[in-house]
Amino acid sequence: MNTCRVALIQQACQSNAEQTRQHTSQAIRQAAASGAQLVVLQELHSGPYFCQHQSCEIFDLAEPIPGPTSDHFSALAGELGIVLVCSLFERRAAGIYHNTAVVFERDGQTAGIYRKMHIPDDPGYNEKFYFTPGDLGFTPIKTSVGTLGVLVCWDQWYPEAARLMALAGAEILIYPTAIGWDPNDNPEEQQRQREAWTTVQRGHAVANGLPVLSVNRIGFEEDPSGKTAGAKFWGSSFVAGPQGEILAQADTTSETILIHDLDLQRCEQVRRIWPFFRDRRIDAYGELTQRFRD
Amino acid sequence: MNTCRVALIQQACQSNAEQTRQHTSQAIRQAAASGAQLVVLQELHSGPYFCQHQSCEIFDLAEPIPGPTSDHFSALAGELGIVLVCSLFERRAAGIYHNTAVVFERDGQTAGIYRKMHIPDDPGYNEKFYFTPGDLGFTPIKTSVGTLGVLVCWDQWYPEAARLMALAGAEILIYPTAIGWDPNDNPEEQQRQREAWTTVQRGHAVANGLPVLSVNRIGFEEDPSGKTAGAKFWGSSFVAGPQGEILAQADTTSETILIHDLDLQRCEQVRRIWPFFRDRRIDAYGELTQRFRD
Repeated sequence: MNTCRVALIQQACQSNAEQTRQHTSQAIRQAAASGAQLVVLQELHSGPYFCQHQSCEIFDLAEPIPGPTSDHFSALAGELGIVLVCSLFERRAAGIYHNTAVVFERDGQTAGIYRKMHIPDDPGYNEKFYFTPGDLGFTPIKTSVGTLGVLVCWDQWYPEAARLMALAGAEILIYPTAIGWDPNDNPEEQQRQREAWTTVQRGHAVANGLPVLSVNRIGFEEDPSGKTAGAKFWGSSFVAGPQGEILAQADTTSETILIHDLDLQRCEQVRRIWPFFRDRRIDAYGELTQRFRD
Repeated sequence: MNTCRVALIQQACQSNAEQTRQHTSQAIRQAAASGAQLVVLQELHSGPYFCQHQSCEIFDLAEPIPGPTSDHFSALAGELGIVLVCSLFERRAAGIYHNTAVVFERDGQTAGIYRKMHIPDDPGYNEKFYFTPGDLGFTPIKTSVGTLGVLVCWDQWYPEAARLMALAGAEILIYPTAIGWDPNDNPEEQQRQREAWTTVQRGHAVANGLPVLSVNRIGFEEDPSGKTAGAKFWGSSFVAGPQGEILAQADTTSETILIHDLDLQRCEQVRRIWPFFRDRRIDAYGELTQRFRD
């Protein structure tokens, strides 16, 4: 069996940036020691999810790529001989900042970057304030463990993003993410939201016949502005197979290094029994580029 | 609460066409007596799922629309004052046959038709032999209970179809379907397939913030050609809400009239907290009309 051992690192944010980096690096080392060939971190893993409020000072946290944080993780990937998916706050120019995933090869070289294309904006998720929408399109990143369709968080709700990655040859879809509950919502609503989040991503696996890795943070983080009740990140990081089946999943509260041996041949088998790509009505999809068909 | 009482009729095929029609009509009457305003039948409900094998004589079963079968169900919808979604084998011309859904208004008038756009072809599902691909596109049908995004079976694997219906104002997605297990597959594979089928459709509900009604048949049907082991249709007809939550579901073996009071206001609330349509990157979706991005 042609497998790839993957590790999804689900963590809480530590009390400062240096401790958070140490904590994350330690988990990466542990994953590599367990034989992981591909390690995926959660969205914006360098610190708290700062988009709960709007503050111009937060832009000080952004770094160029390459920059100090990407240099650190690039060196670590090279030292451990792993492919590593990071999620960083990128300073591209004054006034242009991105929510950017960076993939490092096992020799430490940068395999590619992806700039988050779909940017949310809701109470507690002020991302349109911080992030310029990505302009690199939906382009998978080639690595020694396969072609990775790296997307970020809000992208996970968009079948278009998953499909474009799959059509461009992605073999695995990967979503670093930071999503949590509003503590004011009732348990039924919280359950529906977490389940919807899992379901829509499993749906991308099914529709495109490929595995999905989704990595979320855990822990409660306050809203510094006091405007919302804060966010309780729901973890639940998971590995799904090409029929959308859950192969491994973390819980909602535990720091977890989720390890799974992904069968890379399964995709070919599944696409033979369910040849969805064959039957796409590309002659009738033109209006997908419209905002609304009214 | 602004609700619509829906009924999904999940049945086995009877031993001949007349009995099948009687049996289905009886269930429709029962659904209407229970207060259903919208009744949905399974795919090709007039008889066995004939696509297991290829035979030119089968084309004799096709009827024009309007024709005897559509006249029967149109009259029944008018008599009972319900909106009724049928699924018929349409003869459009010599050599042009479609797998067509017909929606009747509560006065018996035809509200609209939809011709299946995505046509499968697998061992036991020889649909490309029988059905010319639809040429009406993805156009919802306006009725007195709402704007219905009626699609058929294989369409359910395609996020593009669901999205185009939603973008054109569909308020409910509806899938008459006929899907079953190959008795030669092991129970784990069978379970993965049924779960994938549910998941991808629930995913469409999530991605588009609208409810989904999916109606499948039950019962074992032999392959008259003896080439395959036949099909064991897995039922599991369901109603999902706009967060993909299962609101009602039938089992895999029972004839069921699945009734649910659908909350039509929920959709508006869900789309306000998850405004996915707002953030679609329509500038970057152009290549969805390509077969493959190679």
